[in-house]
Amino acid sequence: MLCTIAAAMLLPALVDLADNDRGWQAFLASSVVTFFAGGLLVLVAYDENPPRLGVKEGFLLTTVAWVVIAAFAALPFLGHGLSYTDAYFETMSGLTTTGSTVIAGLDKLPRGILLWRALLCGIGGLGIIVMAILMLPFLRVGGMQLFQTESSDKSEKVLPRAFELTLAIAAVFGGLVLVCAFFYAWFGMSGFDAICHSLTTIATGGFANYDSSFAHFESPAIYWTGTIFMALGAMPFVVFIKMVRGDPTALWHDTQVRAFVGFLIAISLIMAFWLLATRNISFFEAITLSSFNVTSIVTTTGYMSDDYTKWGNFAIGVFFLLTFVGGCSGSTAGAIKIYRLQIAHMLTRSHFLHLISPNRVVTLTYNGRRLPADVPFSVVAFLAIYFAIVGLFAVIYAGMGLDFVTALSASATALGNVGPGLGDVIGPAGNFVPLPDAAKWALSFQMMLGRLELFTVLVLFRPEFWRS
Amino acid sequence: MLCTIAAAMLLPALVDLADNDRGWQAFLASSVVTFFAGGLLVLVAYDENPPRLGVKEGFLLTTVAWVVIAAFAALPFLGHGLSYTDAYFETMSGLTTTGSTVIAGLDKLPRGILLWRALLCGIGGLGIIVMAILMLPFLRVGGMQLFQTESSDKSEKVLPRAFELTLAIAAVFGGLVLVCAFFYAWFGMSGFDAICHSLTTIATGGFANYDSSFAHFESPAIYWTGTIFMALGAMPFVVFIKMVRGDPTALWHDTQVRAFVGFLIAISLIMAFWLLATRNISFFEAITLSSFNVTSIVTTTGYMSDDYTKWGNFAIGVFFLLTFVGGCSGSTAGAIKIYRLQIAHMLTRSHFLHLISPNRVVTLTYNGRRLPADVPFSVVAFLAIYFAIVGLFAVIYAGMGLDFVTALSASATALGNVGPGLGDVIGPAGNFVPLPDAAKWALSFQMMLGRLELFTVLVLFRPEFWRS
Repeated sequence: MLCTIAAAMLLPALVDLADNDRGWQAFLASSVVTFFAGGLLVLVAYDENPPRLGVKEGFLLTTVAWVVIAAFAALPFLGHGLSYTDAYFETMSGLTTTGSTVIAGLDKLPRGILLWRALLCGIGGLGIIVMAILMLPFLRVGGMQLFQTESSDKSEKVLPRAFELTLAIAAVFGGLVLVCAFFYAWFGMSGFDAICHSLTTIATGGFANYDSSFAHFESPAIYWTGTIFMALGAMPFVVFIKMVRGDPTALWHDTQVRAFVGFLIAISLIMAFWLLATRNISFFEAITLSSFNVTSIVTTTGYMSDDYTKWGNFAIGVFFLLTFVGGCSGSTAGAIKIYRLQIAHMLTRSHFLHLISPNRVVTLTYNGRRLPADVPFSVVAFLAIYFAIVGLFAVIYAGMGLDFVTALSASATALGNVGPGLGDVIGPAGNFVPLPDAAKWALSFQMMLGRLELFTVLVLFRPEFWRS
Repeated sequence: MLCTIAAAMLLPALVDLADNDRGWQAFLASSVVTFFAGGLLVLVAYDENPPRLGVKEGFLLTTVAWVVIAAFAALPFLGHGLSYTDAYFETMSGLTTTGSTVIAGLDKLPRGILLWRALLCGIGGLGIIVMAILMLPFLRVGGMQLFQTESSDKSEKVLPRAFELTLAIAAVFGGLVLVCAFFYAWFGMSGFDAICHSLTTIATGGFANYDSSFAHFESPAIYWTGTIFMALGAMPFVVFIKMVRGDPTALWHDTQVRAFVGFLIAISLIMAFWLLATRNISFFEAITLSSFNVTSIVTTTGYMSDDYTKWGNFAIGVFFLLTFVGGCSGSTAGAIKIYRLQIAHMLTRSHFLHLISPNRVVTLTYNGRRLPADVPFSVVAFLAIYFAIVGLFAVIYAGMGLDFVTALSASATALGNVGPGLGDVIGPAGNFVPLPDAAKWALSFQMMLGRLELFTVLVLFRPEFWRS
């Protein structure tokens, strides 16, 4: 994986070289260091008959891979005057497709480093989908075992082998990026901007090439393109593969996708009417503003076309709650995710039925199949732990001197891999650079924690994990 | 129950009469109206052979009782110029032992109305303990079935019948109030203040007779008395009964009490060291300030001896999280409660063990007995729904124009029956009177929701509840 990262670093090096910018040196040097480290690991650890990996190794490997890859992928930023803390934060933010940035003055940066930020989102986004489909279901974290059944079940077997599945995901991901880039360019972006932003759109990353994010473009066509492709990036990629392989209505029949799209439309309409009631704008302007920014937060992308924290207290409250929602499972979106909310709703309903008539037997099904026995507890425990972590880290940030709103929204936006927080410092018009170094490391940790569905990382903190 | 309330109203009427204050008329009129309504209900609905109540009637009766009692108990406030909205809010705040107030200028109020506020806390507090021990375990809400085993199990049967148990609880409650009042008076409170504040202390209510709450007294001895008796009020009353009946070490052996006391001491010490580090005060001053205010929030009382929101961002963050903790089950304390946090911690641990080695069988025990099968899900679902309700109502309040901090902390403090929120308006030095009427009704609803452990009320909103 380190060698792949090293190879990816050559792309921005070439761009900087073509632009006659000295930045190529940082990329080349980082690439050599990373390639060397990766090569050394292969030489030291290569085994012709590798031992079968157990579930413990699965947890450890996943977490360590993220920590180490980010450590190397951060190197190119050092060439642009960032401290290693800032570089690591920016890299983890990209790889986890969070999109919080510590770099101000993006508009004046050389193109190489902008491309690197976009590539981090792309690489991370693709990695997340592969991980969510191939790895997490077998680690049984937070209800992901639900999707183990789906891909291992014979009647619905998507592709027989992991390698083929990975290729198919990469093809769908690449295809979406190209189509999105085409539309962005068609509607007026430069070719370079179109490619960078389409990468961060499909990865629901949210890094933009401008300090003012998408507000820079001032084009409804670009906003609607963004809205649609952010939503597509937050949908289950397995379903896209099914569609390509001959089931064009798969998207429409997926319970999770239907709830997700319905939710997006409902909240976008509510916020549009709120804007109509509080501002002197047309319905089209209102729904364009509302759908872009709502979709950006729900899909955990983190672009903004307007500082929505200036839309009034109601909007601030809604956007804070949206930070928790997230897109579909098996996509690039983070946070709690729609299927967990659906299952939580279903469980609440059946729990109330049970309270009313204790002897009734309720069979729970999701997406047309019975819920595995350990899913209910996994899902609800995920929710409770998710909220608890947001609260605990908020107190840690408050202890570092951040005000209540900044501390709480930083904690929620990092764990949800969303991007912007609330308040003057880290709000949609702000920047994470004024935060203390310790907060940046804690936020990097939270981004990884959220990205790996909490349990994958938390399990490493149990003493039992390290016993025999 | 209405007739009991009507009788209780005569007490403040007598006090006002003795003080030569015209307030007695409002109490007498309210008492007559309430007694008439209660008497009418008895006449209309009395049945010599009452039908056995099922679980559905249990839910409905519990909720309706709280709504209706508050509606009548609010009447005396109308005589003091409060709107009915404010009167209902103040009454629900008292009966649920929340302690949020909409009355400013307490120091100048006639004693009758101050006594009525304290009596509301006392009546509500006693009612809650009886309900939590006799009613909720059988409704199986939010893991309360855990305590059904406890009181129905033969080896540990506390008292054979509900009536005797109620009397025993009332005796313990009354005893604690008297001892507390004695110490308050001993350390310098007037007799009237001592009785009012001991009622709101043991009930963990938090209504004070002064706008500046306990900061008015400026006496370390009174603060430590308050700290100790608030903590006692938040302990399981069944255990006190056991102690009186010949098992003096019962308190020490109770898992919940040990965790509760340990938690109080730990957080009080942390905040004391924080105060020492940020202010020029002695350790005794620091621990006095810290333990009183921490205990006040954790026990969901809501007194303050100093505006802790001026202690810095770390303190604000900690106090916000403390709003969620709560005391022990079977006490007057609200919020999530210690046993749910203990069980959640135990479940998290066993869930991680299960992730590491899927075939291991873990037996879960609490307080020396096996956990009933439906407790884990009940507890974790309670936590998730609790957080979700705090978030949803925060958005509702934001929609009414409240700023983010006020909206979020109002939602959390009402659902947890704590009392003060954060921010300039509803913070410990503030008052709920500037909030819009709609917010006051929603907060009253949230107080009841929290007090009845969520499910008791929420189940009424399921259409299935009303079928057949």
